[in-house]
Amino acid sequence: MHVVITGGAGFLGQKLARKLLSGATIIGPAGKPAEVSRLTLFDVVAPAADIARDKRVRAVTGDIGDKATVDGLVAGEAASVFHLAAVVSAGAEADFDLGVRVNLDGTRHVLEACRRLPRPPRVVFTSSVAVYGGDMPKVIQDDTPMTPQTSYGAQKAMGEFMINDMSRKGFIDGRALRLPTIVVRPGKPNKAASTWASSIIREPLQGDAVECPVDPSTEMYVLSPRRMVESFLHAHDLPAERFGFSRALFLPGLTIPVTAMLDGLKKAGGQAAVDKVRFVPDANIRRIVAGWPMRFNPARAKSLGFKADDNFDQIVQGFVEDDLRRNVA
Amino acid sequence: MHVVITGGAGFLGQKLARKLLSGATIIGPAGKPAEVSRLTLFDVVAPAADIARDKRVRAVTGDIGDKATVDGLVAGEAASVFHLAAVVSAGAEADFDLGVRVNLDGTRHVLEACRRLPRPPRVVFTSSVAVYGGDMPKVIQDDTPMTPQTSYGAQKAMGEFMINDMSRKGFIDGRALRLPTIVVRPGKPNKAASTWASSIIREPLQGDAVECPVDPSTEMYVLSPRRMVESFLHAHDLPAERFGFSRALFLPGLTIPVTAMLDGLKKAGGQAAVDKVRFVPDANIRRIVAGWPMRFNPARAKSLGFKADDNFDQIVQGFVEDDLRRNVA
Repeated sequence: MHVVITGGAGFLGQKLARKLLSGATIIGPAGKPAEVSRLTLFDVVAPAADIARDKRVRAVTGDIGDKATVDGLVAGEAASVFHLAAVVSAGAEADFDLGVRVNLDGTRHVLEACRRLPRPPRVVFTSSVAVYGGDMPKVIQDDTPMTPQTSYGAQKAMGEFMINDMSRKGFIDGRALRLPTIVVRPGKPNKAASTWASSIIREPLQGDAVECPVDPSTEMYVLSPRRMVESFLHAHDLPAERFGFSRALFLPGLTIPVTAMLDGLKKAGGQAAVDKVRFVPDANIRRIVAGWPMRFNPARAKSLGFKADDNFDQIVQGFVEDDLRRNVA
Repeated sequence: MHVVITGGAGFLGQKLARKLLSGATIIGPAGKPAEVSRLTLFDVVAPAADIARDKRVRAVTGDIGDKATVDGLVAGEAASVFHLAAVVSAGAEADFDLGVRVNLDGTRHVLEACRRLPRPPRVVFTSSVAVYGGDMPKVIQDDTPMTPQTSYGAQKAMGEFMINDMSRKGFIDGRALRLPTIVVRPGKPNKAASTWASSIIREPLQGDAVECPVDPSTEMYVLSPRRMVESFLHAHDLPAERFGFSRALFLPGLTIPVTAMLDGLKKAGGQAAVDKVRFVPDANIRRIVAGWPMRFNPARAKSLGFKADDNFDQIVQGFVEDDLRRNVA
């Protein structure tokens, strides 16, 4: 079967691609588990060489805000689409028009292209817990309204309504997942206000010093890349009727304070690793992070079979196995 | 001050136009109540002759889905915009692309044009209680999530997120009102599944027989055109800071069964009027109406000073005074 991943050169897109290329099966057009025979990866840059050279892979670079580009991307025999491409929170806040172009128009282009396929494809859409903000209950429930206080969150919320309505109309068979902060993110720090949550684990384990801009008591709601990729496949394969009136849900995660993250770091890298973390408060980042929801009751997602990581140690271990050793090797 | 009304030839647009042209003041660019010196009415058709011939009125017909048209409409010294133009529920359901073009693209074009004005204008946006659907609580509360089950509702929900985000960014000063069913609507029956709620009052008072497609016990959540126009002006004039984290709210209305509507009809038109109503069940309309929310607790709107009609008799009386006598005269 032919699968399309937008944002296919991002760290989650590449992990999902590797999983699919390694023989993982997902429900195919015939309603039975199938392997990927063709994988289209779309992004603004090319994926890693090991992915790009796979004979099944077609890597396409371009602008998702350009309708014709997307029409050419999702066409013919495409059976399933994972729509991960996005301008993230800080980017969409700094450049409103770029955020609208990529997060809103881009999503619409993908869904419109899907609608023209001979069979309504399964579409897995990455939303975010950034749809919550402002006046929130202490614990986010399944029926907590979306009240985004960032352009990124607003654009994701709009994308969810598109996914829901076009699924209801039978144009697509969509699923929208509100992602926790994905930790440990491999690679370099980015400009996201949450980037430290990965950095304080990744950098010490790579032997580098790192600054933590928030208090040790600060909590984050996190999910590992490994469990996230499993969640993508699980969301894809769930029967449509399990979703009821809404295709959108937030995923189970772990609510964990920085102190517990450092405990996990110590188990993997010893005191020497922990000693590489220096607390250097950043008022701006503390303020942004303080506005994020951190406690969730993901009853619906759990009832649909989605799972959080068992503990933070497991998250660190996944990073060591999947990313650190791969880079070292 | 220059005011723009999109949907300015619709029945609410025209009532709002007449109110503004009659000397009603709204907060102007200088922060003080001002009369309208120029009124741009945009719609697919021209407004009534009495409005069109007012020297202050500029009537523009065109397609709100066309960006250049809207750019030309909301320009220069425009100080406030009432954005009422929409393809209604049944229309957006029957023609998905038209609904997206008018309700989503049209709203975006209006807001983008507003953003380019020298001063962020107050924008009053008509959303709808159609943003609710599917699994709903027995009584809709201010924190009930939007769960639209129609394309119209989904497009209105997306419009609300645009209003909120562009207000947060300081591009506009928006306010989004979720309208109850507006009763009594003057004119002819339309294709809305709610049209009977106006027809069973209007037609008998005009001497015509009418069929009621729902049971006598069926409830509707209604607001009069007169109170709706007052609500538009009130929403426009509220200070931005009163809205807090969300510019959107649902308006107070009356939840009233058909039997009570007919009591109101009897007071205005006698038993002869009531005798013109014949119950002819329509399974399709009953099913659609059964999916609508009917009970609301509009605590937030009330705290902001919005008001429902006092009773249904008052609603009928308003129709008699504002529409029936005007037509007869």
